[in-house]
Amino acid sequence: MQYILAERAKTLKASEIRELLKVTEQPEIISFAGGLPDPALFPIEELAKMSQTVFATDAHAALQYGPTEGYGLLRDIIAYERMAKAKVISHHDEILITAGSQQGIEFCARLFLNDGDYIICEDPSYLGAINVFDTYHANYLTVPMDEDGMIIEELEKILQSNHKPKFIYTIPDFQNPTGITMSIERRKRLVKLATQYKIPVIEDNPYGDVVFSGERNPALKSFDTDGWVIFLGTFSKTLCPGLRVGWVCANQKLLHKFIMLKQVTDLQCNTLTQREIGLYLKTYNIDEHIRKIIEVYTRRRDLMLASIKQYFAPDIKCTSPNGGLFTWVKLPKNIDAAELLVVALEEKVAFVPGAPFFPNKNHKNFLRLNYSNMPDEKIKEGIKRLAHVIESFR
Amino acid sequence: MQYILAERAKTLKASEIRELLKVTEQPEIISFAGGLPDPALFPIEELAKMSQTVFATDAHAALQYGPTEGYGLLRDIIAYERMAKAKVISHHDEILITAGSQQGIEFCARLFLNDGDYIICEDPSYLGAINVFDTYHANYLTVPMDEDGMIIEELEKILQSNHKPKFIYTIPDFQNPTGITMSIERRKRLVKLATQYKIPVIEDNPYGDVVFSGERNPALKSFDTDGWVIFLGTFSKTLCPGLRVGWVCANQKLLHKFIMLKQVTDLQCNTLTQREIGLYLKTYNIDEHIRKIIEVYTRRRDLMLASIKQYFAPDIKCTSPNGGLFTWVKLPKNIDAAELLVVALEEKVAFVPGAPFFPNKNHKNFLRLNYSNMPDEKIKEGIKRLAHVIESFR
Repeated sequence: MQYILAERAKTLKASEIRELLKVTEQPEIISFAGGLPDPALFPIEELAKMSQTVFATDAHAALQYGPTEGYGLLRDIIAYERMAKAKVISHHDEILITAGSQQGIEFCARLFLNDGDYIICEDPSYLGAINVFDTYHANYLTVPMDEDGMIIEELEKILQSNHKPKFIYTIPDFQNPTGITMSIERRKRLVKLATQYKIPVIEDNPYGDVVFSGERNPALKSFDTDGWVIFLGTFSKTLCPGLRVGWVCANQKLLHKFIMLKQVTDLQCNTLTQREIGLYLKTYNIDEHIRKIIEVYTRRRDLMLASIKQYFAPDIKCTSPNGGLFTWVKLPKNIDAAELLVVALEEKVAFVPGAPFFPNKNHKNFLRLNYSNMPDEKIKEGIKRLAHVIESFR
Repeated sequence: MQYILAERAKTLKASEIRELLKVTEQPEIISFAGGLPDPALFPIEELAKMSQTVFATDAHAALQYGPTEGYGLLRDIIAYERMAKAKVISHHDEILITAGSQQGIEFCARLFLNDGDYIICEDPSYLGAINVFDTYHANYLTVPMDEDGMIIEELEKILQSNHKPKFIYTIPDFQNPTGITMSIERRKRLVKLATQYKIPVIEDNPYGDVVFSGERNPALKSFDTDGWVIFLGTFSKTLCPGLRVGWVCANQKLLHKFIMLKQVTDLQCNTLTQREIGLYLKTYNIDEHIRKIIEVYTRRRDLMLASIKQYFAPDIKCTSPNGGLFTWVKLPKNIDAAELLVVALEEKVAFVPGAPFFPNKNHKNFLRLNYSNMPDEKIKEGIKRLAHVIESFR
């Protein structure tokens, strides 16, 4: 049978790279490919206790339908504690609980994008967001970055053009895939420009809490006086990703539209899980827990960067992330990272080739390395293997 | 600030009725409004045990990212046991786990509908589906029903017209809102027509297991030889709705498109919850559990129909559902159920007015009554109150 699909469904394509990377489940492969947090750091005992408590004290409500906007206690703690950590003064009524921040991204696309609309994003940007925007047939206006994030002069040139972009999508903290952090100065300038040009900013901020040295950066949203910044948060990198709990923090009037989208999309998030996480946040100090994650990931980042320095040829450069899960490697121009991956997998080491992270797919000589999910000893060995593969490719 | 939204977002409107019905949370109100299962019937002890077991034996995997298509064991049990109950011969690779069947409906709309496309559905139909289709600017070709469901001759006339409808949306078992069941003869004819006209059928089947007398009906999908029927299932009415676990069962080639939509939408369903439900289904006999639900709901259906017969004037008719959660009441032509609701709420009894269930909103003198979530004694009292309100409205 031949199904007649909508136009938008025709852009849904299976990823060849995803197919290739299925082999990373084999234990003999050292994988720097996924964006997986280390499961050894999940607060299992605490979450198990919270689950028992919710079942023992509140099971009827926890298994019944609940409000579309989310569980009250959880919205409170996100508004008044988690957002406050990012220096955002927020309110209960500005929070919608979503199925991870991925759902927040999808809602933004559905809410703002007509076919063929322009959007602004960093170059490169998060693959999972690009895949969403592609299904809405977005056109990209990309802003180059340096070590301080988006180059604001370039952003301003784009805003002055006649493309009428619908929003700016940015990951200011420890960006996926580059690990780059936007400076505070640039955050202020970006929000000022957005306000001036009346353009929404989608601040995708899954990694902000996982900062290796210094304080958490103030979110773009903390500089937002007029409601142009939409903040997307998640517990995937601080608690665990399997529970699929994230949030949108936005101006209440705009949030109302998000709530109506949530209603038609899947009614609401898992009631039980929202109560378990709410109770966890009320009972334990998540920031103490995050410090343990930071300790391990800092060590692994150090180990990966040191191994790269030791084994990679000096002309191969990588970023030095101050948080998050990834470093970004620039290969010599003539090396196609997708071709490199095929050989690397034979040598039992995996990564994600960089091209799909560029909205216009115009650079092939980059790759993304994850350091959060491999034990220390495998990081060194994996980088050594990868160095050999790269050299054999010259 | 004035946000510039996508065209589709402009149809997202807050429901006045939903606002009105917020008062049903007050305990003194007898509510026949929601579609809530009775929480006293949730298998709390069993689910609590399953949760403990998953945390004790499988926590790392249960809290980590998992496959987009869903947890293997759960997909197996759905394919080989749950679908088999509906007489469908299915396979693991034909099952995608979704956030309730609502997400399945939304995916169907996103996958098939271009702006302004025609779709076919029953008149009236499920409000939550109509709200989804409205956001995709669907046009409706409605098929009238009698006590055996869609009138197939009317469906055939529509198929012969030149509207090129994208799919047929139907709830064959104990339809929401009417409680009507499609006869087996008509199921066969519908699938035959769909195959002949090469048009997908979305079989929304949340209530099929909750059958009051006789066996579960064979699903439309059980008569599908060529892959035109997309079956949407859920555990919301058989276990509990708060966990948000449903599924799509479709031809593998088509399911692949659904999986890619799931990937961009929210990556995957809650890993922990999928394992808890999978383990529940492996450990306990859910059909025994469903029998308890059936016993209670049968009694309440009987009580509601008897009360209607006792208290309502003889010119007011309601349907006699053989399963599910709802009966559907036809009022005298001159009574607007939305106006009736305002007075009913003053008398502390609630229902959902029928107009929004009609895709073209062209009938005001119907209302939907739910009998699953009120204790026996309140059913009689509520119907008595409602009868008074109706009579005062003549």
